[in-house]
Amino acid sequence: MSERFLVIGGDAAGMSAASKAKRDDPELEVVVFERGDWVSYGACGLPYYVEGIIEHLDDLVIVDPDKVAQRGIDLRRGSEVVGITPRDRTITVESDDGRYEEPYDHLLLATGGRGKLPPVPGAALDGVFTIRNLDAGRALRNYIHPDESTTVPQEQAGYGSTLREMVGEVDTVAVLGANKIGLELAEAFVGRGLEVHVFETGATVLPVYGTDVASVVDQHLRERGVHLHLGTDVEQLRGDDGSVTAVETGDGSVDVGAVVADLGVDPNTELASDAGIELGTSGAVARDEYGRTNVPDVYAAGDCAEKHHLLLDETITWPYALAANRAGRAIGSTVAGTPTPVGGIVGTNVMKLFDLEVARTGLTRAEAEAAGFDAISRTITTITRAHYYGGWTRITVRMTADRDSGRLLGGSLVGEEGAAHRVNAVATALHARMTVAEVGSLDFGYAPPFGPVWDPVLTAAKVLEDARG
Amino acid sequence: MSERFLVIGGDAAGMSAASKAKRDDPELEVVVFERGDWVSYGACGLPYYVEGIIEHLDDLVIVDPDKVAQRGIDLRRGSEVVGITPRDRTITVESDDGRYEEPYDHLLLATGGRGKLPPVPGAALDGVFTIRNLDAGRALRNYIHPDESTTVPQEQAGYGSTLREMVGEVDTVAVLGANKIGLELAEAFVGRGLEVHVFETGATVLPVYGTDVASVVDQHLRERGVHLHLGTDVEQLRGDDGSVTAVETGDGSVDVGAVVADLGVDPNTELASDAGIELGTSGAVARDEYGRTNVPDVYAAGDCAEKHHLLLDETITWPYALAANRAGRAIGSTVAGTPTPVGGIVGTNVMKLFDLEVARTGLTRAEAEAAGFDAISRTITTITRAHYYGGWTRITVRMTADRDSGRLLGGSLVGEEGAAHRVNAVATALHARMTVAEVGSLDFGYAPPFGPVWDPVLTAAKVLEDARG
Repeated sequence: MSERFLVIGGDAAGMSAASKAKRDDPELEVVVFERGDWVSYGACGLPYYVEGIIEHLDDLVIVDPDKVAQRGIDLRRGSEVVGITPRDRTITVESDDGRYEEPYDHLLLATGGRGKLPPVPGAALDGVFTIRNLDAGRALRNYIHPDESTTVPQEQAGYGSTLREMVGEVDTVAVLGANKIGLELAEAFVGRGLEVHVFETGATVLPVYGTDVASVVDQHLRERGVHLHLGTDVEQLRGDDGSVTAVETGDGSVDVGAVVADLGVDPNTELASDAGIELGTSGAVARDEYGRTNVPDVYAAGDCAEKHHLLLDETITWPYALAANRAGRAIGSTVAGTPTPVGGIVGTNVMKLFDLEVARTGLTRAEAEAAGFDAISRTITTITRAHYYGGWTRITVRMTADRDSGRLLGGSLVGEEGAAHRVNAVATALHARMTVAEVGSLDFGYAPPFGPVWDPVLTAAKVLEDARG
Repeated sequence: MSERFLVIGGDAAGMSAASKAKRDDPELEVVVFERGDWVSYGACGLPYYVEGIIEHLDDLVIVDPDKVAQRGIDLRRGSEVVGITPRDRTITVESDDGRYEEPYDHLLLATGGRGKLPPVPGAALDGVFTIRNLDAGRALRNYIHPDESTTVPQEQAGYGSTLREMVGEVDTVAVLGANKIGLELAEAFVGRGLEVHVFETGATVLPVYGTDVASVVDQHLRERGVHLHLGTDVEQLRGDDGSVTAVETGDGSVDVGAVVADLGVDPNTELASDAGIELGTSGAVARDEYGRTNVPDVYAAGDCAEKHHLLLDETITWPYALAANRAGRAIGSTVAGTPTPVGGIVGTNVMKLFDLEVARTGLTRAEAEAAGFDAISRTITTITRAHYYGGWTRITVRMTADRDSGRLLGGSLVGEEGAAHRVNAVATALHARMTVAEVGSLDFGYAPPFGPVWDPVLTAAKVLEDARG
């Protein structure tokens, strides 16, 4: 009889593992249990769905269920795994067909995470959203733009909110947290013609991008009409008739019709804990370099599992798509017979905000100092094309190193072109533990339409190396 | 008395060395001898000057002579160094003021290179150009578009051609060699409304970019009206009244009004040879890792000097701007008291061709096999943005590895967006001697406007690693 690989959760990590395992070992019986309707979806596209430039939720789906079946994977949607019994090597599933058990030879926990609501009064009001999956995105769009509503059963819309029975006009939206998704949503709301207020407890937008990059973003957001409330603690969400109507801070109150929180992600670990699977210090499921938990033949990947940060040499939560896909794929290989490490992260992130590309990798100076490094940073601003080639704009690059060894610790970039892909070279240098002197000596490409002779990344490294000396 | 650092040649390597040395050691007396008029110019911008989108040659100058003087550098234009006497530590200079000697403590040879003319009858006809410096660019533009002519003394225009006394209409141009500058010029000529014929002895355009990338470029060039003559040897250039009128090949004859050769660069080494400075196997000046020649206190950098190819572990000629700037800057540091290696290259190149970004780094499979590697390559084509994010186009990535060890050996990319900067991550991985498995596990950034979750570079690495297994 063939071995059975059961996967709990049908998004990035789960579907990557299932697909890779089945492809590498066609004899393997692979079953994916997804409690919702959607599998293999691109939640990172939700801001564009909310804005309306992506019309249908279906458009975000990467692999549709029919394709999954064609791959020979037994996909069971509407099937929630409610228990794991390691002693018997079984799981317990609840679906419309009732409750049943399934035996496993290999099991993957890919239960994801959920957005944090603000820990203040009023967080349970209607019109307060987090946004981590497609139904939440739909509920948010329906709430702010009800004439685009599709019929959604009440019980499916409950991600921090339910559909209002009487939908009024929403013309002002609050975003809690000036982080990646929050600011992408701010752009989406501006695109909708809404007034947007962003509330951030830190002193700058994008606190993990470094102050110099943040200040460029700050100015750009304000020019586009986004109202920024920085260094501001939200104390309460006020409501009327069960729906949110205002954000209250120490500095006063702002009337809003909806609130979206981007305050981090809590890993979904209840199923693991109940089964005696250990969590790590970050609160996510602990796993070794192959994604194995403390329970034999049980793996964890995606937002529910810890990631290994290569610069900190610590495990952290890191709820981003590539890390989930990569860990899932690696575990699929391992289950199919080729032990494959899930790999570490260096903290790379990138986003578009209006006309800006914004990117970061590694550690900011503040993060590096908190981790015990004696860090030094420098910021340069240069141009994105040769000076004589038309259409150049400014690009700002901030780079951080260990003062004594010169080891590169991080970089962030912002500009209207060239920032998004340039960050990956910096990320590669971080993986390779290069010094900034080594980075400054890299043989990059040069052509007038794409940069100055010394690429901005090289210039930043040279300036930082000179400052260190 | 302060030490004297003399620099022969005022472009990329020479001016970088002079500027860095003076900045790091203001006591140093720094003198730059340039036989022509132009210093610190961006020869890589010449195709755009030829096309006319850059109007004036002055626009290409990066640091003008006044600025050089402000830096405390004694810049002597129109001053040709005609001899080096290592025994006396002097050089001999010829200028309008006559012939004189100058003593040095440190000397840098940055004499550059010159474009190769085709080794066929007719190469000395008027209307046959190479293009390596500003005067050559001007002569070419004047020749094909005489109504934009500026007054150029005959003796300055002699780069494979002189100005015709009676300029007629040029409506067809031949480019010899389908390499970077040649194809950039082909685009420029199309922009001018000229008929363009490219002659290449190899079977594809861009032979050092690999066949799959070349075929995308091939199709794009043809769509834009460029006539490609591949696998074609030029046997003769025919002329009429001293001016070129046709290109003759084994396949027939093509009438043309001008010819531009991009067939490689010969390093300017005569001055070095005459002084007993050793050349390397590549024909360029041999130097150690600090840019030192075999003669004490004499350095060489830029197109006249060899480069160390980190993958081949051999010295080669590599006439590109960044390598020249970097070596110059390093030698400037060394002369000023901080020994700094000039660094190696991995063979990175990038260009814009009409709507395409085209990039390469490392070795193609053919190059790898010629170097003794048992090489394996794979090519993927994917999309440049998330599938649901509008405006995506195709990007093709070819990657080559050592079959046994999995070590990354090279990559090339082509597409309408994202190819130019992505290559630098691949170049960084080459510097770090990563395997393709390691490349496939890199923590790159992801956002829907900039790529799929698995960046095309990661996908190519994964596919190649799977194929190797």
